[in-house]
Amino acid sequence: MNREALFQQIRKKKSFLCIGLDTDIYKLPAHLLAEEDPVFAFNKAIVDATHHLAVAYKPNLAFYEVAGPEGWESLAKTVESIRKTDTGIFLIADAKRGDIGNTSAMYAKTFFQTYDFDAVTLSPYMGLDTVSPFLAYQGKWAVVLALTSNKSASDFQYLTDRETGLNLFESVLKTAQNWGSTDQVMFVVGATRAEALKRVREIAPDSFLLVPGIGAQGGSLGEVARYGMNDRCGLLVNSSRGIIYASAGADFAQKATASAEKLQKEMETYLRQKGLV
Amino acid sequence: MNREALFQQIRKKKSFLCIGLDTDIYKLPAHLLAEEDPVFAFNKAIVDATHHLAVAYKPNLAFYEVAGPEGWESLAKTVESIRKTDTGIFLIADAKRGDIGNTSAMYAKTFFQTYDFDAVTLSPYMGLDTVSPFLAYQGKWAVVLALTSNKSASDFQYLTDRETGLNLFESVLKTAQNWGSTDQVMFVVGATRAEALKRVREIAPDSFLLVPGIGAQGGSLGEVARYGMNDRCGLLVNSSRGIIYASAGADFAQKATASAEKLQKEMETYLRQKGLV
Repeated sequence: MNREALFQQIRKKKSFLCIGLDTDIYKLPAHLLAEEDPVFAFNKAIVDATHHLAVAYKPNLAFYEVAGPEGWESLAKTVESIRKTDTGIFLIADAKRGDIGNTSAMYAKTFFQTYDFDAVTLSPYMGLDTVSPFLAYQGKWAVVLALTSNKSASDFQYLTDRETGLNLFESVLKTAQNWGSTDQVMFVVGATRAEALKRVREIAPDSFLLVPGIGAQGGSLGEVARYGMNDRCGLLVNSSRGIIYASAGADFAQKATASAEKLQKEMETYLRQKGLV
Repeated sequence: MNREALFQQIRKKKSFLCIGLDTDIYKLPAHLLAEEDPVFAFNKAIVDATHHLAVAYKPNLAFYEVAGPEGWESLAKTVESIRKTDTGIFLIADAKRGDIGNTSAMYAKTFFQTYDFDAVTLSPYMGLDTVSPFLAYQGKWAVVLALTSNKSASDFQYLTDRETGLNLFESVLKTAQNWGSTDQVMFVVGATRAEALKRVREIAPDSFLLVPGIGAQGGSLGEVARYGMNDRCGLLVNSSRGIIYASAGADFAQKATASAEKLQKEMETYLRQKGLV
């Protein structure tokens, strides 16, 4: 899926919502634990209840890896099921991998061939070598960490380069844009630093941004839209816990629909204001 | 295993060799493909043939993930088998994870509880939040990327901070030393930049360093020992392909022994020169 196709999905659904599948077996509604694969059953119910409101899903790999081989079975079934349910979905592996050479090539193969993802989150610390094997896949994306939403993001991401005067996250945005086109590379920019989105847009006006940190982490959707939206929307805003754990009871799917719908309606407003729908 | 216990293993085996289990199903000797789990069979044979010469093994996660759930089965069996074969082995998951909060906690649980590793490689891009959940485990280690051995390491690792005059990799070394003790935090420093080890030792004199890049990647063991060794050795030098693919034939295990022995003998010389054995 290229940038224009992703924008068309956003227009169609009047939404730039990404739903994070951080599915924790210890947080599932009790009645699902009788299922053969409770994690998959939960994910399927969430996707069935929300896919008309979301353009993307983002399984968080840590939550699958922790269960051992069975976790990867749940992930595989989830990916397959999403593909069947809605062919327009953009599917992101939130894996934050970052290695080089043949190792990086193996990770690309993992997420683009073994599993049918459209995109993978990657750490830029080792530079282009981390990302280039992913860009060899037609129609697939590298989602590069730039400015993250956590407290210790400032440990290194705000260090200022003596030569260019750019902070590290600004150097990443500037450099990584040259690694691939805006059809291949997008960036992670945390919503808790919405004012920083203004600066991000000066450096990367056309790139899609994956924005976590809405909801549980305290970011404001209005601020993100105000500073981050471009003429192709250019935003995928993620919410995880606020949607998938909206209720811990038997009504979790209905409550997930309601939470996703609330965000979608707000997103539709911003898309209209910008004349994009 | 703390720093002193790791040093005692090094003294006992007169070796600071780490063997990288980058086990690629497409590179296995043909006769192993008839085994029920060829990857595990290969790893077991390699470990049986080399564990008296090595203090650490480092499965490279990408090579297991690419096979889907079965790959994680092979990994689990490999870890279990190494524990049974040699209780003195230091076991590193080369996973290069890097996330925050509850996600990072899930990764720590994955590698320290679901799988019985001693250490995990981590990317420092998101700062302390990435590492702290790993440090909550007694006797376990975070292995933080500092200066890597690949060409594009210079994309960001050599950016110079305006305030401190430190390169990014130097900032990582300096900052991450404060995250935990030298019994908990070690650093990845690539061997292809052996002269940089001198600088690393100025900043982190007591830390253990995991040094990849010997052999296939062209680094010199002598240079690494010269610039990197401290009074507790302080080095784990990794070789992967040079040992595990020393032969593609039925004699792969014997050839792995020979390759590992050659490195061990050279390491013993440097340990003697330093008066450590």
